[in-house]
Amino acid sequence: MNNVKIAILGLGNIGQGVWKILNTNSEEILKRSGYKIEVAKILVRDKNKARAVDVPEGLITTNPDDIFNDDSIRIVVELMGGVHPAKDYMIKAIRNKKHVVTANKLAIATEGEEIFKAADEEGVMLYYEASVAGGIPVIHGINESLTANKIQQVMGIINGTTNYILTKMAHEGMDFDSALYEAQQKGYAEADPTSDVDGYDAVYKLAILANLAFGTRVDVNSIYREGIRNIKQVDIQYAKEFGYTIKLLAIVKEIDGALELRVHPTMIPSRHPLANVNDSFNAIFIKGNAVGDLMLYGRGAGDLPTGSAVVGDIISILRNNIDLSSSNASRNNHWSMDVNNIEYAQSEYYIRITVRDVPGVLGRISTIFGDNNVSLSTVIQKGNSKDFVPLVFITHKTSEGDMRKAIKAIEGLQSVLRIENIIRVENSAI
Amino acid sequence: MNNVKIAILGLGNIGQGVWKILNTNSEEILKRSGYKIEVAKILVRDKNKARAVDVPEGLITTNPDDIFNDDSIRIVVELMGGVHPAKDYMIKAIRNKKHVVTANKLAIATEGEEIFKAADEEGVMLYYEASVAGGIPVIHGINESLTANKIQQVMGIINGTTNYILTKMAHEGMDFDSALYEAQQKGYAEADPTSDVDGYDAVYKLAILANLAFGTRVDVNSIYREGIRNIKQVDIQYAKEFGYTIKLLAIVKEIDGALELRVHPTMIPSRHPLANVNDSFNAIFIKGNAVGDLMLYGRGAGDLPTGSAVVGDIISILRNNIDLSSSNASRNNHWSMDVNNIEYAQSEYYIRITVRDVPGVLGRISTIFGDNNVSLSTVIQKGNSKDFVPLVFITHKTSEGDMRKAIKAIEGLQSVLRIENIIRVENSAI
Repeated sequence: MNNVKIAILGLGNIGQGVWKILNTNSEEILKRSGYKIEVAKILVRDKNKARAVDVPEGLITTNPDDIFNDDSIRIVVELMGGVHPAKDYMIKAIRNKKHVVTANKLAIATEGEEIFKAADEEGVMLYYEASVAGGIPVIHGINESLTANKIQQVMGIINGTTNYILTKMAHEGMDFDSALYEAQQKGYAEADPTSDVDGYDAVYKLAILANLAFGTRVDVNSIYREGIRNIKQVDIQYAKEFGYTIKLLAIVKEIDGALELRVHPTMIPSRHPLANVNDSFNAIFIKGNAVGDLMLYGRGAGDLPTGSAVVGDIISILRNNIDLSSSNASRNNHWSMDVNNIEYAQSEYYIRITVRDVPGVLGRISTIFGDNNVSLSTVIQKGNSKDFVPLVFITHKTSEGDMRKAIKAIEGLQSVLRIENIIRVENSAI
Repeated sequence: MNNVKIAILGLGNIGQGVWKILNTNSEEILKRSGYKIEVAKILVRDKNKARAVDVPEGLITTNPDDIFNDDSIRIVVELMGGVHPAKDYMIKAIRNKKHVVTANKLAIATEGEEIFKAADEEGVMLYYEASVAGGIPVIHGINESLTANKIQQVMGIINGTTNYILTKMAHEGMDFDSALYEAQQKGYAEADPTSDVDGYDAVYKLAILANLAFGTRVDVNSIYREGIRNIKQVDIQYAKEFGYTIKLLAIVKEIDGALELRVHPTMIPSRHPLANVNDSFNAIFIKGNAVGDLMLYGRGAGDLPTGSAVVGDIISILRNNIDLSSSNASRNNHWSMDVNNIEYAQSEYYIRITVRDVPGVLGRISTIFGDNNVSLSTVIQKGNSKDFVPLVFITHKTSEGDMRKAIKAIEGLQSVLRIENIIRVENSAI
């Protein structure tokens, strides 16, 4: 039996989960890794904060140098979140020849290049399975299992908060605000839900997935982003009527050698496996040219699921021979690929418009769509208001650019009150 | 760029898939592994057999010693299937210090101990991702990603043929024979479908999964096995009425330190992720004490999906440093666990009985259930036949032993014509 000392930076939700797993499953971990893992130090901001786990006082420190300068500590587990000071701490650990495990999507997505470079230079391992989709081994999956594939497409439900909200809206008829409120009450959404409901969280995770799947660095700012605030109960109902389910999808596809990257609410066929991913569950649907369709489903957040990924990474380091230099380099190639402007992205669309109920309005709108190369597959007119009626269109595949031109012209019509919603439809998902 | 020579034993469906992937994706494989993989020899039984892939004649051999005695060949890929001579060939390759990749569920499930022992002794790597669920990285998942977990339960749809048949029966109202015929026409089922429809194929795969998840050898003969031949359209309809979907599940659970292992048709709640796994797709649903619920979904068979797993294993060997000795040992611990007799297994049950339509029959049957500790949750009596009517029961959780005693007594009743079907119900699956 070998002994290995590790340090944990941060004792929040995930840090406490890691502590619990290391203690509860110590026997399994020893059997699988050959090591007894000893937590030698835990960095916290406030020593006196009440915590749900019972950690010996002597392990707690507020001074990061206690960790960086301790040569007996071989692995540093960064669970602070945020870019600063997490990034500097990771690099400092790396420069002190410590292997690093992190759950930090923001730091990896935005500062990954610098952190990976440092790890390559020092020959240490850097693992970050927990940074995307919590307990789901998607990074391992792409990085270690699907290596024989040319990956063609990754589509994921990688934000549990928005999936919880959309599930409540679809299954219980709630409106967005009530569903958000319930998510907040249950601890699935923050007091300020911006990062989740406006799609930022999914953008960071998609950048990491795209990097892995296509071996190319992705600037988070190059990812098209649209959140779920504008999804109305009526859109959910129309979707159902057409055989679709609305999910916030993070999508990366290779189109003729360039990448298309986008995070937005999407109507997918209700029989698609992703459509049946409910509540706060996450799932990633991958198309590879050999494996075909593959989906990984599970808990995308939470102390224990995320801790499962963190501790799994620690065990990977121990099994990979902790004394060896890293082979990260070959796993993080920087093949350079262009990112397509969203204007060129092809999609089908659902468009809901409120119009004045006057003769000829449908004709005028349809003509504008046609003039802009947008071909319609379905048109529905319903409603009982005397003055205004909803018009709903589903289009065939068209480019975002053509769609925007058409919408702009339609908005200019006197008989159009409002473009209520535009939601992309992914039939090619199946 | 390094060069590595490999040999393939067998050029059937999977062998041809591997050949295609190595050629089509050679650029990706080189980037990810750092190696150019050269197929130096392919062992076949018949040199003159027509094949869909165009393999240079010089690579083909019918003499295995051309491979075992060639020191320049570092990896042997066994894709012959069956125990003999595949097992001996694998061991011969291992004794000649070659790493081995195999897709052979039968050899690993029944002769794995001897093959692993040889690999440990020679310090070579032995990978077998393709032996269970084709392209789905479930072995990698359990072995490398879920290492931080105490796994509590694995439930899988791991036979595509039966899942295709059950899907056709459920979605298109086919009876078993028509669905089997269609599966055979489409190449999903063999002319002799015994191995698939009677559950043998799933038993082998479950033995491998149980070994990985619980670190213990499992004798395939200790696995309870029941196929899908007796599933009638009427059972599918009743299941739907009760909110269930019938799937052939392979299940392993830990119950108080012992394993419960079984392969049988199972009614699972229709909202369970496994219930939505259709056609020939496979999926494995895993419960770990840290990760919670995790499901891996994808293609369980086919030349390219299975080839994806095989080539992924080759790349794993190259990345693990082909010149190092193996760390297989720590990954195939033989913790010894008992296997519970099926009599002790707890389950809910669906029971369909045809009875004579005489007064008191329901009372007599219900009394027998009660006398044997079988408590009923639902009873349905339908039917329009004058003389015979179907009775359908769903029970609460009960032991297999008690159920068998009850059934035996019920069969003895004069008013009972036939016990038509008994199907286990897994509500705890959610």
